[in-house]
Amino acid sequence: MSVNTFGHLFRVTTWGESHGPALGCTVDGCPPGVALTEADLQPWLDRRKPGQSKYTTQRREDDLVEILSGTYEGVTTGTPIQLMIRNTDQRSKDYSEIAAKFRPGHADITYHQKYGLRDPRGGGRSSARETAARVAAGGVARKVLAALAPSVAITGYMVQMGTMAADRARFDMAEVDRNPFWCPDPAVAADWAEYLDGLRKSGNSVGAVIEVVAQGVPPGLGAPIYGKLDSDLAAAMMSINAVKGVEIGAGMASAALTGVENADEMTMGPEGPVYGSNHAGGILGGISTGQDVVVRFAVKPTSSILTPRKTVTVAGEEAEIVTKGRHDPCVGIRAVPVGEAMMACVILDHLLLDRGQTGGVRGTIG
Amino acid sequence: MSVNTFGHLFRVTTWGESHGPALGCTVDGCPPGVALTEADLQPWLDRRKPGQSKYTTQRREDDLVEILSGTYEGVTTGTPIQLMIRNTDQRSKDYSEIAAKFRPGHADITYHQKYGLRDPRGGGRSSARETAARVAAGGVARKVLAALAPSVAITGYMVQMGTMAADRARFDMAEVDRNPFWCPDPAVAADWAEYLDGLRKSGNSVGAVIEVVAQGVPPGLGAPIYGKLDSDLAAAMMSINAVKGVEIGAGMASAALTGVENADEMTMGPEGPVYGSNHAGGILGGISTGQDVVVRFAVKPTSSILTPRKTVTVAGEEAEIVTKGRHDPCVGIRAVPVGEAMMACVILDHLLLDRGQTGGVRGTIG
Amino acid sequence: MSVNTFGHLFRVTTWGESHGPALGCTVDGCPPGVALTEADLQPWLDRRKPGQSKYTTQRREDDLVEILSGTYEGVTTGTPIQLMIRNTDQRSKDYSEIAAKFRPGHADITYHQKYGLRDPRGGGRSSARETAARVAAGGVARKVLAALAPSVAITGYMVQMGTMAADRARFDMAEVDRNPFWCPDPAVAADWAEYLDGLRKSGNSVGAVIEVVAQGVPPGLGAPIYGKLDSDLAAAMMSINAVKGVEIGAGMASAALTGVENADEMTMGPEGPVYGSNHAGGILGGISTGQDVVVRFAVKPTSSILTPRKTVTVAGEEAEIVTKGRHDPCVGIRAVPVGEAMMACVILDHLLLDRGQTGGVRGTIG
Amino acid sequence: MSVNTFGHLFRVTTWGESHGPALGCTVDGCPPGVALTEADLQPWLDRRKPGQSKYTTQRREDDLVEILSGTYEGVTTGTPIQLMIRNTDQRSKDYSEIAAKFRPGHADITYHQKYGLRDPRGGGRSSARETAARVAAGGVARKVLAALAPSVAITGYMVQMGTMAADRARFDMAEVDRNPFWCPDPAVAADWAEYLDGLRKSGNSVGAVIEVVAQGVPPGLGAPIYGKLDSDLAAAMMSINAVKGVEIGAGMASAALTGVENADEMTMGPEGPVYGSNHAGGILGGISTGQDVVVRFAVKPTSSILTPRKTVTVAGEEAEIVTKGRHDPCVGIRAVPVGEAMMACVILDHLLLDRGQTGGVRGTIG
Repeated sequence: MSVNTFGHLFRVTTWGESHGPALGCTVDGCPPGVALTEADLQPWLDRRKPGQSKYTTQRREDDLVEILSGTYEGVTTGTPIQLMIRNTDQRSKDYSEIAAKFRPGHADITYHQKYGLRDPRGGGRSSARETAARVAAGGVARKVLAALAPSVAITGYMVQMGTMAADRARFDMAEVDRNPFWCPDPAVAADWAEYLDGLRKSGNSVGAVIEVVAQGVPPGLGAPIYGKLDSDLAAAMMSINAVKGVEIGAGMASAALTGVENADEMTMGPEGPVYGSNHAGGILGGISTGQDVVVRFAVKPTSSILTPRKTVTVAGEEAEIVTKGRHDPCVGIRAVPVGEAMMACVILDHLLLDRGQTGGVRGTIG
Repeated sequence: MSVNTFGHLFRVTTWGESHGPALGCTVDGCPPGVALTEADLQPWLDRRKPGQSKYTTQRREDDLVEILSGTYEGVTTGTPIQLMIRNTDQRSKDYSEIAAKFRPGHADITYHQKYGLRDPRGGGRSSARETAARVAAGGVARKVLAALAPSVAITGYMVQMGTMAADRARFDMAEVDRNPFWCPDPAVAADWAEYLDGLRKSGNSVGAVIEVVAQGVPPGLGAPIYGKLDSDLAAAMMSINAVKGVEIGAGMASAALTGVENADEMTMGPEGPVYGSNHAGGILGGISTGQDVVVRFAVKPTSSILTPRKTVTVAGEEAEIVTKGRHDPCVGIRAVPVGEAMMACVILDHLLLDRGQTGGVRGTIG
Repeated sequence: MSVNTFGHLFRVTTWGESHGPALGCTVDGCPPGVALTEADLQPWLDRRKPGQSKYTTQRREDDLVEILSGTYEGVTTGTPIQLMIRNTDQRSKDYSEIAAKFRPGHADITYHQKYGLRDPRGGGRSSARETAARVAAGGVARKVLAALAPSVAITGYMVQMGTMAADRARFDMAEVDRNPFWCPDPAVAADWAEYLDGLRKSGNSVGAVIEVVAQGVPPGLGAPIYGKLDSDLAAAMMSINAVKGVEIGAGMASAALTGVENADEMTMGPEGPVYGSNHAGGILGGISTGQDVVVRFAVKPTSSILTPRKTVTVAGEEAEIVTKGRHDPCVGIRAVPVGEAMMACVILDHLLLDRGQTGGVRGTIG
Repeated sequence: MSVNTFGHLFRVTTWGESHGPALGCTVDGCPPGVALTEADLQPWLDRRKPGQSKYTTQRREDDLVEILSGTYEGVTTGTPIQLMIRNTDQRSKDYSEIAAKFRPGHADITYHQKYGLRDPRGGGRSSARETAARVAAGGVARKVLAALAPSVAITGYMVQMGTMAADRARFDMAEVDRNPFWCPDPAVAADWAEYLDGLRKSGNSVGAVIEVVAQGVPPGLGAPIYGKLDSDLAAAMMSINAVKGVEIGAGMASAALTGVENADEMTMGPEGPVYGSNHAGGILGGISTGQDVVVRFAVKPTSSILTPRKTVTVAGEEAEIVTKGRHDPCVGIRAVPVGEAMMACVILDHLLLDRGQTGGVRGTIG
């Protein structure tokens, strides 16, 4: 019930503000006996960290993660794992304008309305810096998955920026790590680079769509009716800052399909059913089928922009606001490793939940 | 942690299979002192119940709800409310084909894989009949909302069937109750009627998009980071049978917006901030803004169709399947009252959660 | 977070009032594939049901349990199991006095204070009738334990009534089913019978101590720090009506022991460590040791008595109250099967929780 | 469901091992707008910290608490509060004997059995050092209670050591802070001092009983049936290291009372009902009555003692163990502030939970 926690058995509670001394998370319920050191987590944090290209915020944070508990001699003990990341680049800055005026499209106003006060420094708790803690937790989940379900492979990438969608015909997964957008279509990535450069210079920002795929997920994960694999993925992705839509498999486009088209027909392969298509996104009735689990989510454009926007002040006066500072022109870029981390956590959580209830027994086919 | 429960403080646990003796739900955490009888709930169930037009399943269920606990002399006591609906139309039927073959796009196969057995009669627990329990719970939530937050009004309607979208320029909310699709655009509703008639006759089905709007939601509801109002709505809607995508406000289309376009600019009105647009769908940082809360979800086409589809059997043989029986050609139609019910439950839950933590204190503007 | 639910993975939500149409519970998270019919549950309910001897309430309830969901062809499917018990002996009676006056030592006044209203008929939700639902759930847990951990055997019995304690030197477990007090010491049971007869005639009641032992519990169950096996047992037992104290192993008497006395020394047996004593009650650090899990709890005397007691009315006037009706002179008697049921549920819950996190891997000794 | 979390709305997740770099807790759900700095918490930690008298462990820890998140300019923001305490006195020491042999009465063996490995340094996660985090969280709860329910006053004290009980006729609460045992009976405290001195020198230890009283708790807190105030207190106290029994009000002695004796009779006072006694310990039906909430718990003797005890090794060999090091001869002493902290957390949690469900509306009397 903690509103800063996600997961059923593999539970992650994050804490911390953008400009406080540190942020982090407690990972509870981690299986014991899994090798885990900071070196296993740091590469994932490095993928997310700011300042890696001109397309992300120029804030410089090393985002070094420390494991404060839950391991002994480099192995998980089954007790809570505390992961802490120091905030190192809290430039002294005047936050009085942000404290006084609400940025349109930003959580400034709702935190103020709900809590009566807020930490205006860098967005406080509503800052996307919170996602560093998720990425660290996702790193733990990946290590455990590697031990318990080595078939699972999780990959995220950007499939749309603004109105420009990637072309699946050009997809080459080897390209994902070769451009600053984690895009498998190098042609569209080049277009995005140019487009984003212009946007940034004009003091604007843009949205994006991210796709995250988990391959090798065993069938049988997910718990109907309100702990469905897709419900939990939807909640996980929607909880990421700036996300406004989540799709599984064919997603919103399912509405346009007929039942004949949508049916993922099956034939029998040597190791079980083989599906002719994957409109289901690897999930039926909230339970994994064994096909790729496919999730997409839309990230809205960064709300902190240099172009003046009309707003009101805490005092109730009308005003214009221009948000200076080091902001991502497309916050969707850094959402890629975050989406991967959420996928890893959800898959592992359901793996544990399933073996808790069923003991991992499976119905056979053939 | 119950995987058949949703909600934090207003908690609904549903139970029951399509062809068992009954189904229902336990509503726990309901505030005391609210007038509540079966007559308050039945109208919502009547909206959802099958057999109301030729566009929904011809199964005939009265769906009469009984309150078995939690009220005294027609008033809620604060103790668990048990709502039971007898299953009356369990035609004796031969389920041996469905028991032996998996319907493509249906939960048959995943229940089998996960649990090793399943109740094949009418889909068992994975049947959309489960949603009757949600609608009953939603009726309770509406009564409580009427007492605690009378400004809240919740309306659901269909905005797309197949490839045919409703035209917002033609929206007239008075039309919603005048066509079998709960559509505010009467012109497209007429097109849908003709289209669906043809589909049904050809043994096919189709998907749909539903929109649910909650007006009058006070600002300040929602609990960052993992109990966000939008996260919980995403999970709630994604948990409805056949839903494959969920959007808040501008939704997936946010990706195509620039920050300048997406900013919902504010001016000052007599009662506080006034927004010039609502791309946010009434939620910023997971907390309600006071604008309309707008959710959309896509429902895939019914997977039980008369057109033969390739599949496999439990024995591992390849086969064709034709699903006879009384199935909805567009299961999205009956998802409208279900989506409304989920919205009511989530809004109430967050209202209780907010007053638990903050006592309902609000930051003022002006 | 449902306050009418207990358990982590094997979760039981009870509902219902003493004089409503029915009461029951939803059992969620039950493993699939376990044979289960009403005949498995009824014997446990029969043990708890009233009117079996002159030492319990003369209310006559058949307490017939119906399984409304969660099984198919007599086997659990992994979906929620709804267990319903009709209330059949709701004598029409005048509850106006109980509605107006608060019984000292009874929940009448606190329900009124908290909720502003209460169901006065037979105590409403605060009636010990609620425990019938627990016993039914415990029956399910026993069936699952028999399948997953057949070594587990759970036995409850009364060890003290009023000031008269049973003598462990005389314990013969075969006696438990031979007297109306489930007492392994037949001599004290005879004394109790005579004592209770007198008490009942004088319009008085008395307290008791119940002990519940689970033998054959595998080592390794329990989840530090706040889901400890003993914490969960303490909560489970304390939640039973009228319970005022809970002990594990040596319990409150641990305070009087020295460390030298309290140490349960170990030697090595053919199958692992053998303990020379069991002050720990089978639990160390919140985790089972493999020894007998031993819990005791004290049940206060029934508060509804024929002897006049001073009280106040809802209107705020001073008054005397004499509670007529069919009340247990020693409600502790019927708490025996309830304590057993709670033990069964907690043990099973931790068995599932453990295999969720650890997969049942165990550290070896020797 | 996190097994390292307690609380419903005011939720505390603790983490950390005895000899890791740090330990602490995340407090989630704290109301916003409450003044809070380290200076509010440190005094409670100072009460618990070791090395304050010769009757507690001579380990020296400053136990300085740092607030890493959740406050802004010294006021709570409603976001998670991270409290961290560095472990400063991790003497380099040879833990090979403890790693190889299990201390009788200690969690060594069960952690090994459950997790397959354990952190042997100072007991790892099972060390009583974990309670420092609870005391810090309790300090937060006290600050919030002071703001929301200033009538509440929480006091803990020792009432029994070994076989020597304090005499309530001699109780003087002003004495509690004047002796190293937090005992309101100075005479018995002097006896304990002498007794404990001898025990310590002989390499032995002893148990104790602690009583914690919350005065001024408003009526109506607690949530039947499985979130009862007494159930939650029982779980909270039983989760403290070495606790083996928990009592509410008359506790285990309730068993010896008759209904006539046990009835806490009521008369009418100027501000509502006045009770003639408090066998109920301030709780009826799981809900507070407005009387003092009275909890007692028994703490077993420290299991780490200098007297040799028989045990087995990880390798399965029989052995003797003598536990050297800096151990409390009566760990019950330092359990006093821990019990107070748990009481504060539980009372606040139920205050928030109650206002969530009922809005704080109360039934009137008179």
